[in-house]
Amino acid sequence: MSTPVGTIALACRFDAREWAEWLPALATALPGETLVRADDQNHDPEAIEVAIVANPPAGALQRYPRLRLVQSLWAGVDRLLADPTIPAGLPIVRMVDPAMNAAMAETALWAVLTLHRGFHTYARQQRDGLWQPHPQRRASGVRIGVLGQGQMGDAVGRRLRALDYRVMGWRRGEPLGPVLAGSDILINLLPLTPDTRGLIDAALLRQLPCGAALVNLARGAHVVDEDLLAALDDGHLHHAVLDVFHQEPLPVGHRYWTHPAVTVLPHVAAQTDAGSAARIVAQNLAAWRRGAPLAHRVDRQAGY
Amino acid sequence: MSTPVGTIALACRFDAREWAEWLPALATALPGETLVRADDQNHDPEAIEVAIVANPPAGALQRYPRLRLVQSLWAGVDRLLADPTIPAGLPIVRMVDPAMNAAMAETALWAVLTLHRGFHTYARQQRDGLWQPHPQRRASGVRIGVLGQGQMGDAVGRRLRALDYRVMGWRRGEPLGPVLAGSDILINLLPLTPDTRGLIDAALLRQLPCGAALVNLARGAHVVDEDLLAALDDGHLHHAVLDVFHQEPLPVGHRYWTHPAVTVLPHVAAQTDAGSAARIVAQNLAAWRRGAPLAHRVDRQAGY
Repeated sequence: MSTPVGTIALACRFDAREWAEWLPALATALPGETLVRADDQNHDPEAIEVAIVANPPAGALQRYPRLRLVQSLWAGVDRLLADPTIPAGLPIVRMVDPAMNAAMAETALWAVLTLHRGFHTYARQQRDGLWQPHPQRRASGVRIGVLGQGQMGDAVGRRLRALDYRVMGWRRGEPLGPVLAGSDILINLLPLTPDTRGLIDAALLRQLPCGAALVNLARGAHVVDEDLLAALDDGHLHHAVLDVFHQEPLPVGHRYWTHPAVTVLPHVAAQTDAGSAARIVAQNLAAWRRGAPLAHRVDRQAGY
Repeated sequence: MSTPVGTIALACRFDAREWAEWLPALATALPGETLVRADDQNHDPEAIEVAIVANPPAGALQRYPRLRLVQSLWAGVDRLLADPTIPAGLPIVRMVDPAMNAAMAETALWAVLTLHRGFHTYARQQRDGLWQPHPQRRASGVRIGVLGQGQMGDAVGRRLRALDYRVMGWRRGEPLGPVLAGSDILINLLPLTPDTRGLIDAALLRQLPCGAALVNLARGAHVVDEDLLAALDDGHLHHAVLDVFHQEPLPVGHRYWTHPAVTVLPHVAAQTDAGSAARIVAQNLAAWRRGAPLAHRVDRQAGY
């Protein structure tokens, strides 16, 4: 069976629930396009010109010789860029969705409020049956460093500043030392690139003030786990809120699961909203078909 | 020993840490006044014209026959109004402090983010070693009812709306049914009065949608505990975040401590900031001494 040129292949490692959410959302947003699932064998790979992807297995796009565009449904494209089988000239567009930025800002805000106001401590006290109020600091006295000043870093910084927190942002190329020295809470929102892999190591953590906290909402591979655990064990760091890990799901028996100074989240800081993301895919495709410049095209050199 | 007229008595049930925080703050803010602690016997009660109080024992102000003003350091004055020994004509001013409103808004925001994004569920999953993301709703789909539309209700509503939550406020005299029916999360910020005591009972909770959550940041006596526990036990309510209780500290062995659907906080939603509150006391006193109208004078009939 052959499919007309203009078809889009969906190469996604989705479970049944995810397919049930995404397929109707994309079909609704793209009424003029022919959508096929990559795992559906009844299509002609030569007819596929666009791949809509979400963490496809390495090499998955090799079967499409006439591919002209890759649209990621996820904001992070580190896995795509690590796939050497994707031709260098093939444009990759990553997902930039205000709804995701808002979700990320909610998670960052929740983590900051938890750490600033000690709600994680009160949760432990409840388990111990202990009634013990602690002195309350004002938000204006809490210094927050935000690593990454893209759309998500902007959204997070804006909402934190609206609550009176003292926010310092950091972007690549700026000196990092002063941001670290002035961060009671450090939030990581960086893209994962060869430059940022393993950035959060013992040397970086030592530059945070004693008693600081880390919030990692970006990628597990930004963090050197042994270094973070050492900083938590010796009390230099007060707490870590971790949404992402080197291996996901976080393996059974990993120390993070049971460490009293670690909050583990199952990669839920900012899930893509299918309806909203599908509409953004449709806008990107419409612009691309009429030859307009691609917004949020990935810069392969920069790595995001 | 006698003290000059113009003296202020501090009648507060403070512990050592609280005295160490408040006494210097008030002394700094009130350089022209003579401050005496009510528990200091070396003063003439007839010389006292102002009482600065924080939950004084009932009858404590009887010893001051020439008292002309009572300034509360706390926002809630239900205990003062329940003291029959305080003359009806004696003006009582309650604390209204933007710093406290901000702290209350932080706590409300934290509770809403926790409930909306399921961070309390993820905490339980971490204890169970379970990696399980749940579908994510957008803030614009979460309906929040705010009981009490004073300064704190305003501050809470403003910050929630800024994050796109759908907020409906309720004040005395308005129909309560539609607010309850449309509240996925109900936040109580009411003053405790004869009208509002026991307001949150089985009849009220039944009007919330199934799966709703309650956040009580006002007074424990607003809630009928058995009714709340029954609604949590039968699953009609999903969760309750409780900062206040009929008896504080919450007694050892109380079911709230160990109920899986209850978050217990040790009355820390909005602690008074001594420095900020002392400056507000100074402003109020200066206005009173020059005969200006008293801001935030308690209405004994209304009860707040």
